[in-house]
Amino acid sequence: MGSTNNNKKKKVTFDDIAKYTGFSKTTISRYFNSPDSLTLDNQEIISNALVDLDYKENKVARILANGKTEFIGVIVPNLQNHYYSEMLNRILQTYGRYGYKFLVFVGNEQEETERQYIQELLAYNIEGLIVMSFTLPSRELAKLPIPVVTIEREDRYVSSVNTDNYMGGVQAASLLARHNCEILIHINTTDTTPERPAYGRIRGFLDICEEKKLNHRLIYVSQSDIFEEMQESLYTVFQELDTVYSGMKKGIFVSGDTRANIFLNLLIRKYGSLPDDYRIVGFDDSPISREAVIPISTVGQQIEKMAYEAVSILVEQMEDRKKRRPVLSQEPVHRVLAPILIRRETTETGEETKK
Amino acid sequence: MGSTNNNKKKKVTFDDIAKYTGFSKTTISRYFNSPDSLTLDNQEIISNALVDLDYKENKVARILANGKTEFIGVIVPNLQNHYYSEMLNRILQTYGRYGYKFLVFVGNEQEETERQYIQELLAYNIEGLIVMSFTLPSRELAKLPIPVVTIEREDRYVSSVNTDNYMGGVQAASLLARHNCEILIHINTTDTTPERPAYGRIRGFLDICEEKKLNHRLIYVSQSDIFEEMQESLYTVFQELDTVYSGMKKGIFVSGDTRANIFLNLLIRKYGSLPDDYRIVGFDDSPISREAVIPISTVGQQIEKMAYEAVSILVEQMEDRKKRRPVLSQEPVHRVLAPILIRRETTETGEETKK
Repeated sequence: MGSTNNNKKKKVTFDDIAKYTGFSKTTISRYFNSPDSLTLDNQEIISNALVDLDYKENKVARILANGKTEFIGVIVPNLQNHYYSEMLNRILQTYGRYGYKFLVFVGNEQEETERQYIQELLAYNIEGLIVMSFTLPSRELAKLPIPVVTIEREDRYVSSVNTDNYMGGVQAASLLARHNCEILIHINTTDTTPERPAYGRIRGFLDICEEKKLNHRLIYVSQSDIFEEMQESLYTVFQELDTVYSGMKKGIFVSGDTRANIFLNLLIRKYGSLPDDYRIVGFDDSPISREAVIPISTVGQQIEKMAYEAVSILVEQMEDRKKRRPVLSQEPVHRVLAPILIRRETTETGEETKK
Repeated sequence: MGSTNNNKKKKVTFDDIAKYTGFSKTTISRYFNSPDSLTLDNQEIISNALVDLDYKENKVARILANGKTEFIGVIVPNLQNHYYSEMLNRILQTYGRYGYKFLVFVGNEQEETERQYIQELLAYNIEGLIVMSFTLPSRELAKLPIPVVTIEREDRYVSSVNTDNYMGGVQAASLLARHNCEILIHINTTDTTPERPAYGRIRGFLDICEEKKLNHRLIYVSQSDIFEEMQESLYTVFQELDTVYSGMKKGIFVSGDTRANIFLNLLIRKYGSLPDDYRIVGFDDSPISREAVIPISTVGQQIEKMAYEAVSILVEQMEDRKKRRPVLSQEPVHRVLAPILIRRETTETGEETKK
């Protein structure tokens, strides 16, 4: 007990390191206890000696020696929304490529718990952080002593990977317009404020509608990601639309496949199939869009690629910091990926398929 | 750089620790470098001093000092299956209660990558491991130098938390029998072998059918968790059942809500609603069973409770190891939770609801 994991046969002592490097034991001890009191060159010599002497299996010693934990923290707002669970899935699968290991936290909008968690991770010398939750402003995240990359959230002061949401809104509205919908409706959530990337979906939708002079409407529903609450708020919307626009061809663009699936199910339960006067487009291309009773057309986020980009930006910034004399770029990197419109049965149905 | 995160104001040196404890600096250095060379009592004095001297924020030093990383590794086979993403969700949410942080790995049946990952985690002194993947036998897991708890997988040599799958099979078959189904069909996957807890579903189903002399059939489908492959294999089964048992009332017990949802969707697409001659029961009570176009009756696993139990068994065993003179219980703990039958619309429909 007390010692690190059972590689007793090869316990490397301060003596061994001193002999190997030619430094005194006091210097070695200072290296472990207060590395800043040594020159960078001497730190490097000792750090290299630790590797040579096969400290390899004792990662904790390595961490002490060079601060490299190979840990990345990941904060997701929740795992109920299929978009987040799929993004997490893809992030975790970069292990094979980069070897970084992920400490995962589900935020559930508990601002203080999230702060505490981040502070804990910092105390463990994690090297970087991927944030998908909306809780903490990027101004606060930017002050953390490690690189931070956000995905699809407010990102003014930190690096980020986002989908071109504006283009997504344009694609969705254009597709519904091409299907000759007489009223275009965009359903989004009350928390989609202008500083969030997802606000671009609204702007893109509105711009196309105004440009093409299309009859349109924007509806906000509860931001809750709890299924029953999503269902309740969408049921109210569905009831109203189905009555008010009866007889008109309705093009429904729902922000998020999880909600698009709920809307679709309400329709199927009432009519048994997708009525001819409805066209539905979701957003995300999360698994539920394929698993739905009728596969849902969706503005696809390139989730796998976004996850890979987020980790790759982070790895680059983390590697920069490991250089002996790091030149840190202070400019946040914002990478924006094109959405890919995926046409499935909720738009390409009935007579129009034959076109 | 090299030092832990920016709490420079309070850097505790070997000198400070030596003065505080009355030991020589050499002894302090030995404590960090080869703690086993000190008596347990002296280790304890120094370890306590580190806490008193507010090494609190420097977790890496604490890890070196006492081996407590507060990290738990979690291995899930995949995150496509809604059961696993929900179990992971619930495990991660125990952070608020226990403070343990989770390193998460998605196995995808890559046996060697999984082994490598575990070895890496061990080198980082993680304290415990929760395994949901099927890849490594429990005999191998039991040899790891840390406590392991499995969930719903082969668990002969390690501690585990499982659902009473046999009781679940009994509940499902009995419910379908009560609805006067003329043929009871259980769909399970080819990898459900007798050493897996899920095999109990088959035994429970068969025992009830034989006891009540019910017309029944067991069908195995591909074990793949890739949606398109699940869909394909279930489509074949659906086509056959719908033809062969035409006119008979069919009770379908599908192992896993993810598959039950696919089966239900095939029915809805063909008939527009759930036909009177079909009753469906899933297993898991994973979110998809509620989000389905028709809410699916299911043998509910108490996912939140199972996650909590798994972490709690692990915490207990990890705490045991931290005692100065640990008495390790070598007997694996197997905790079995009762399934809870949840009746929703895929069974409680039509005239029978009125009973």
